[in-house]
Amino acid sequence: MIAKDMKNSIKNGSIIRAMFEEGKKRARIYGAENVFDFSLGNPNVEPPEQIKQAIIDIVSSEKPMNIHGYMMNSGYEDVREDIAKSINRKFKTDFTSRNIIMTVGAGGGANVVFKTLLDPDDEVITFAPFFGEYRGYVANFGGKLVVVSPNTVDFQPNLIEFRDKVTPRTKAVIINSPNNPTGVVYSEKTIIELSEILREKQKEFGTEIYLVSDEPYRELAYENVEVPYPTKYFENTIVVYSFSKSLSLPGERIGYLVIPTEAADYENVFAGAGIATRILGFVNAPSLFQRVAARCVDLEVDVEVYNRNRELLYDSLKSYGYECIKPEGAFYMFVKSPIADDSRFCDMAKEKNILIVPGTYFSCPGYFRIAYCVAYDTIRNALPGFKALMDEVSGI
Amino acid sequence: MIAKDMKNSIKNGSIIRAMFEEGKKRARIYGAENVFDFSLGNPNVEPPEQIKQAIIDIVSSEKPMNIHGYMMNSGYEDVREDIAKSINRKFKTDFTSRNIIMTVGAGGGANVVFKTLLDPDDEVITFAPFFGEYRGYVANFGGKLVVVSPNTVDFQPNLIEFRDKVTPRTKAVIINSPNNPTGVVYSEKTIIELSEILREKQKEFGTEIYLVSDEPYRELAYENVEVPYPTKYFENTIVVYSFSKSLSLPGERIGYLVIPTEAADYENVFAGAGIATRILGFVNAPSLFQRVAARCVDLEVDVEVYNRNRELLYDSLKSYGYECIKPEGAFYMFVKSPIADDSRFCDMAKEKNILIVPGTYFSCPGYFRIAYCVAYDTIRNALPGFKALMDEVSGI
Repeated sequence: MIAKDMKNSIKNGSIIRAMFEEGKKRARIYGAENVFDFSLGNPNVEPPEQIKQAIIDIVSSEKPMNIHGYMMNSGYEDVREDIAKSINRKFKTDFTSRNIIMTVGAGGGANVVFKTLLDPDDEVITFAPFFGEYRGYVANFGGKLVVVSPNTVDFQPNLIEFRDKVTPRTKAVIINSPNNPTGVVYSEKTIIELSEILREKQKEFGTEIYLVSDEPYRELAYENVEVPYPTKYFENTIVVYSFSKSLSLPGERIGYLVIPTEAADYENVFAGAGIATRILGFVNAPSLFQRVAARCVDLEVDVEVYNRNRELLYDSLKSYGYECIKPEGAFYMFVKSPIADDSRFCDMAKEKNILIVPGTYFSCPGYFRIAYCVAYDTIRNALPGFKALMDEVSGI
Repeated sequence: MIAKDMKNSIKNGSIIRAMFEEGKKRARIYGAENVFDFSLGNPNVEPPEQIKQAIIDIVSSEKPMNIHGYMMNSGYEDVREDIAKSINRKFKTDFTSRNIIMTVGAGGGANVVFKTLLDPDDEVITFAPFFGEYRGYVANFGGKLVVVSPNTVDFQPNLIEFRDKVTPRTKAVIINSPNNPTGVVYSEKTIIELSEILREKQKEFGTEIYLVSDEPYRELAYENVEVPYPTKYFENTIVVYSFSKSLSLPGERIGYLVIPTEAADYENVFAGAGIATRILGFVNAPSLFQRVAARCVDLEVDVEVYNRNRELLYDSLKSYGYECIKPEGAFYMFVKSPIADDSRFCDMAKEKNILIVPGTYFSCPGYFRIAYCVAYDTIRNALPGFKALMDEVSGI
């Protein structure tokens, strides 16, 4: 009775979400302390203490109508202005409230962008490995996701193949840096070269192509690595941001879009994004958390907690013989599967109550993803399992 | 550069939302006290006092991860269980958490339902006058909205025409009671007859048809009028509920779906709705307000405030010679335009700083909608304008 598309979606499910639920099931059977769930990017670092106080202050001092009522679909104007100013302070940009649309997290934001931009059969290019949800987000609006194959040397985007995949039907390119699943930060060189190719192709085809920069992990970067702000390199950039990770509020569904005034067809894109927010049923980003985000826009969670996890996990896995790039950001590690069949390896790990996601889900078979946004002890206690797995497959 | 569909949407806009923004503009020019904005269903009755305390209690006593983190896409299981129990207490039903999906308001809920159910070109029937957003919600998934023309005698659905409009492609019927824009409550007789026609047509065509009951105004009913609970009359009913009006929290985007176990293809519909929540980018209903809703599920705003508005407005308009049905629920009055051209009448009203919405927007030309969820004084001060308008057109 349900839609045919949805039947397929139920069959395929989200392997990540399925693992999340598997993890909870196993925790009930084996005890939470014996299950090592590295499946979901659910931040384990607490929100900054000020979040709680901001919530209490806001509900105690503001009129209920000003915090729980409807506002423009694009969000509270003062909130959007505060966010624009914060971006300007950090990146020496020049945005105002007229460049910001509040969204229901980055997932909501990406859907608003694609609803606004895509005609049926328009192409959206992305670089493997990539966050598997992009498939659904693009398909929701009849778009076609075109995948550039991975560069497994350093996991920067494969720009040579990219150049060949841009066509007159390319409406957008979606990038994600710091990257899920690799933790790699796309370098300034990458962003500059990508921008040059886009300009060249726009000229060749007489089209406009939007660079959609999905940045929920922007604030999670280690050792002072620079995460270039993409609107400074390419004029048709739309930033999709979320406070889910920077403030550890993923359940609250609060984020924003940046639509620069210099982007092609700016007036329509901005108006369209407001309307798309309405038509898709979001209506507006949750109102109280718009205000919380504005108050806490310059705060960040304690990234050092993730960094400690990263160091322990990376050093240990390397010492057991695993191959992987040391992530510079986010809280994911993308490890080469010691056997070619990554799904089989993840099944073997599951038998040891270690939940990890096959690279196949990210269109990069032969690898697996570890989400290390977990307690330090979870990593420490899982290490013997990772070692045993390597020993096992080495004996095969 | 943007999608063709969106270009049309920008051109047509939401007339209601445009008025909302027009109202704010006029308030700046003429002073807020001189603008009578009856355009938007933005509740003016404050949330129950307990909401504020619930928020403070929850953030003070619960771990941040349990109130701001990810959970299953369908929502917190305990919250869903609490909501199911509340429905069971009120309507003697028998739901559990396995019948409830938390949603981003009713707008989000309706989109999740249509994403789950609709194949391209499937038909969804609704009854004029109806909430204009249904057009977009159905079109988002390639569905075709089939409109049954209004019964302007008592604004109960026109079931004779309805019977003829059900086809083998009818996947769903969407109803809205208490109704926006008429304030009419669909009677038990209506629901029974509607259900009988649906059963008859299901049998005739060998199909299953879902009755989608959009109920954000359920709790706003006057003089103890009964609002029948539709799952008790028709097995393939899906309820779309929102706390936006019952608790005056429209900005927070919190609501739920009820998917009864006896609905056709229940397992797939329920699983599909969870997946649709994810794929559409909602991911989950805002987490803190899931917990707030569970704590406050049996509270209601003070409906007497709306009732006072209703009485004053209805009695006054009747005394000026306007024709309208006395609303039994919601906070809308649907008044016959004294001139045939309802858009022109609304423009004339705008000149008097009275903002009302033409019936055309609800597929019922010749009428206009007044959203009376405003201060009592706004109504009192607008009355001379309504009288003057009637005098003006009587002189035409």
